[in-house]
Amino acid sequence: MATDEETLTAAAQRVLALLAARVLTLGVAESCTGGLVGHALTNVSGSSAHFWGGIIAYANDVKRDVVHVPEALLIAHGAVSRPVAIAMAEGVRRVLGVDVGLAVTGIAGPAGGTPDKPVGTVHIAVVGPWGEAAEHHVWDADRLANKVRSALAVLALLERELKRTEQSVTP
Amino acid sequence: MATDEETLTAAAQRVLALLAARVLTLGVAESCTGGLVGHALTNVSGSSAHFWGGIIAYANDVKRDVVHVPEALLIAHGAVSRPVAIAMAEGVRRVLGVDVGLAVTGIAGPAGGTPDKPVGTVHIAVVGPWGEAAEHHVWDADRLANKVRSALAVLALLERELKRTEQSVTP
Repeated sequence: MATDEETLTAAAQRVLALLAARVLTLGVAESCTGGLVGHALTNVSGSSAHFWGGIIAYANDVKRDVVHVPEALLIAHGAVSRPVAIAMAEGVRRVLGVDVGLAVTGIAGPAGGTPDKPVGTVHIAVVGPWGEAAEHHVWDADRLANKVRSALAVLALLERELKRTEQSVTP
Repeated sequence: MATDEETLTAAAQRVLALLAARVLTLGVAESCTGGLVGHALTNVSGSSAHFWGGIIAYANDVKRDVVHVPEALLIAHGAVSRPVAIAMAEGVRRVLGVDVGLAVTGIAGPAGGTPDKPVGTVHIAVVGPWGEAAEHHVWDADRLANKVRSALAVLALLERELKRTEQSVTP
């Protein structure tokens, strides 16, 4: 059976091949995954041609000041929300000057859950020249497994978006 | 035997305990490790109290435009160099507004090596209120193992620096 690392690297490899085919660059904004998505992408040799980097926006101050998520969104919806995930993806896309931004924000646990946002809640988003997509999940695993599932989910979302928009005009 | 993930998480835990004892905040600037240092730190529950986030500065444009590494340093010394590692640590410290910045820049391989900077060359740096420290290594493993060794080395450097300066005045 493949390890988490192998599964993540394989998902990253598929995404990078699709980006390469369309000559698109990618940046990531990671909160609860803390760098795991970037780690997976950079496990692939040659990833530097399309993966430019990202922002690990763990503290809300970093989401606001470095990724430029509007403070009003953080106050109105909380850091773990669909609008903030989309704003993080848009923000990293703009700050890094890349074609595609992706974002993950969630509660990996074991602490930090609330009644309406339990531990394991994660919002993910992808913003590209074709538009935006977002989804959310509630995982029921431990901290590390929740991080791995979140990273796999955002890579899968990006893969689906790249395939769905294959016929789009590239920027 | 501990897995790489367990060894990295244990190293992160020691660093976070030392940061907590001195009420210091941390940010990371990662090139060749691609997010692995941030991933290790955020494997530790409660890390958000001291780890604010970081910048995955994979492309040189991100080193220059987001981490604010002076272009002259990149041209004079190359991205994989002691001055650039120190500038990355200083840059992320300033951009994130944290007490301590750490940085990793290297060539994970298998491509990208040159005669004077072979595959496996990595420069790491830590900048804190007490000053700066840097070192370099030349690993001889594969891409993923070179990333793991680099992440462990920068966490070890930070641990040593935090212990060495224990008697320093905190900011």
